[in-house]
Amino acid sequence: MRALWLENQRLSLREVPEPAPRSGETVVRVLFAGICNTDLELTRGYYPFAGIPGHEFVGEVDGKRVAGEINAICGKCNACLAGRTTHCENRTVLGIKERDGAFAEYLVLPQENLHAIPDSISTEEAVFIEPLAAALRIQEQVAITPKDRVLVIGHGKLGRLIARTLALTGCDLLIASRGDSVPERKFDIVVECSGNPEGFEIARKAVRPRGTIVMKSTYAGDLKVNASALVVDEITLIGSRCGPFDKAIDLLASRKINVSDMIDATYPLEKAITAFGHAQRAGAMKVLVKCRP
Amino acid sequence: MRALWLENQRLSLREVPEPAPRSGETVVRVLFAGICNTDLELTRGYYPFAGIPGHEFVGEVDGKRVAGEINAICGKCNACLAGRTTHCENRTVLGIKERDGAFAEYLVLPQENLHAIPDSISTEEAVFIEPLAAALRIQEQVAITPKDRVLVIGHGKLGRLIARTLALTGCDLLIASRGDSVPERKFDIVVECSGNPEGFEIARKAVRPRGTIVMKSTYAGDLKVNASALVVDEITLIGSRCGPFDKAIDLLASRKINVSDMIDATYPLEKAITAFGHAQRAGAMKVLVKCRP
Repeated sequence: MRALWLENQRLSLREVPEPAPRSGETVVRVLFAGICNTDLELTRGYYPFAGIPGHEFVGEVDGKRVAGEINAICGKCNACLAGRTTHCENRTVLGIKERDGAFAEYLVLPQENLHAIPDSISTEEAVFIEPLAAALRIQEQVAITPKDRVLVIGHGKLGRLIARTLALTGCDLLIASRGDSVPERKFDIVVECSGNPEGFEIARKAVRPRGTIVMKSTYAGDLKVNASALVVDEITLIGSRCGPFDKAIDLLASRKINVSDMIDATYPLEKAITAFGHAQRAGAMKVLVKCRP
Repeated sequence: MRALWLENQRLSLREVPEPAPRSGETVVRVLFAGICNTDLELTRGYYPFAGIPGHEFVGEVDGKRVAGEINAICGKCNACLAGRTTHCENRTVLGIKERDGAFAEYLVLPQENLHAIPDSISTEEAVFIEPLAAALRIQEQVAITPKDRVLVIGHGKLGRLIARTLALTGCDLLIASRGDSVPERKFDIVVECSGNPEGFEIARKAVRPRGTIVMKSTYAGDLKVNASALVVDEITLIGSRCGPFDKAIDLLASRKINVSDMIDATYPLEKAITAFGHAQRAGAMKVLVKCRP
């Protein structure tokens, strides 16, 4: 089959063998895959992945459309037994860690990872189920009420998606990007999804004492953190990753969240490298790759 | 009166005017003051304080012994109105910020900051009320149960005090210092009170995915934090400062916490600079200064 291949931070199009399912796994025919910032970070060496990237997708199994959770778990380790399955010690992660991903004609995931897509969600919109679930993870970790002042740092596709989920809480919401001037020490909750250290600096200044900074972006390199200021102001910093697919599907199906305006362009799989170039442009929104020839 | 004076990171003994109480404030005759790591950090430039240091004390008002909360607040700012009084935007802090401290014959605090000391607590033990309250702050922020594996990093006086408060929860408790080898990705909660970046590195490795690192030490300089690892492992980092005096007094009065074995030495106020030298020694426990001539 045709696939996009990442190795030593370089992308190429290749002919590769079709993936073979192991016990409990299902072959999914990929329809569309979305380019996420994590994919862009992989091409910059954020994690030494070699293989087919891509973890946001909509596919088909027996003619039915499916989305898929990206962590394939062992079910036996301490994390799994404690119910923290997305932190399985032996997990593989679609297109990120030891499992080929979605920029290909076919992918393989455990059957239990797959979710049926209701008819009211278009195939292109369904690509947003994975990042929307990740956005909703924030509300599993931090209670957000209409009384809260919330700042989202990052005008990109993840930032906008997060802002749309937070708006549903009725909170007092502001969206900023680096370079913007924001009130200092005023926000109860700041979500950092700019993916750069400047964004973290803004977050640190904007959060109030005893407030919470949610870290949503993965990126290469270390942050410099003034630890004493964290202690004196009793700030909470919390990392946030994968979230609930069922809730994301419900929000899209019920039209409470609209995502169709966030698609910048769609490229065929043969043009996936061009699609990555598009996704890297400043201000680019979601770029889709159509994987069915 | 006689007082220890800090200016440009240098300590000296001085004759200074007795402090004058403003409305609502009380003059306290200081009996003993304890040397805290924050005092040592102040002499290293952690915060540009000039004046009399010292914030752990036991004193006397009208012949009755008192301990005192260190944040003097305005009662009117957003933080005060929201109940986060220790984060008052206009606060002065005894011996730390814009308010002379306890290494002197007298100090001044708002009347509402003072707590009577029960007879069952010795005068020397009462110096530990402030740091014990700070240790107990952790349990206001993080629920700790007998099921939790907890690691305290730091064998110093604050680390030991924290360990003694955590032991009361029945949790599975380990105390380590830098250089110790500890199990990786195993602890539900890690309390970092070593006050150095190596301690933070140990904390980061020891905490399990979705675990919590409590930052208890103030120290100069920035930490380097691998932000992506925080995000992927969904770690919570939480700063922790001042805590409940009433609970600290109860624990000492009921003998549930013993502190008398943690006093290394007592020096008269005239020898306060020698006392600071003693407190800086590796492995030093609490050093007291007797402030009554």
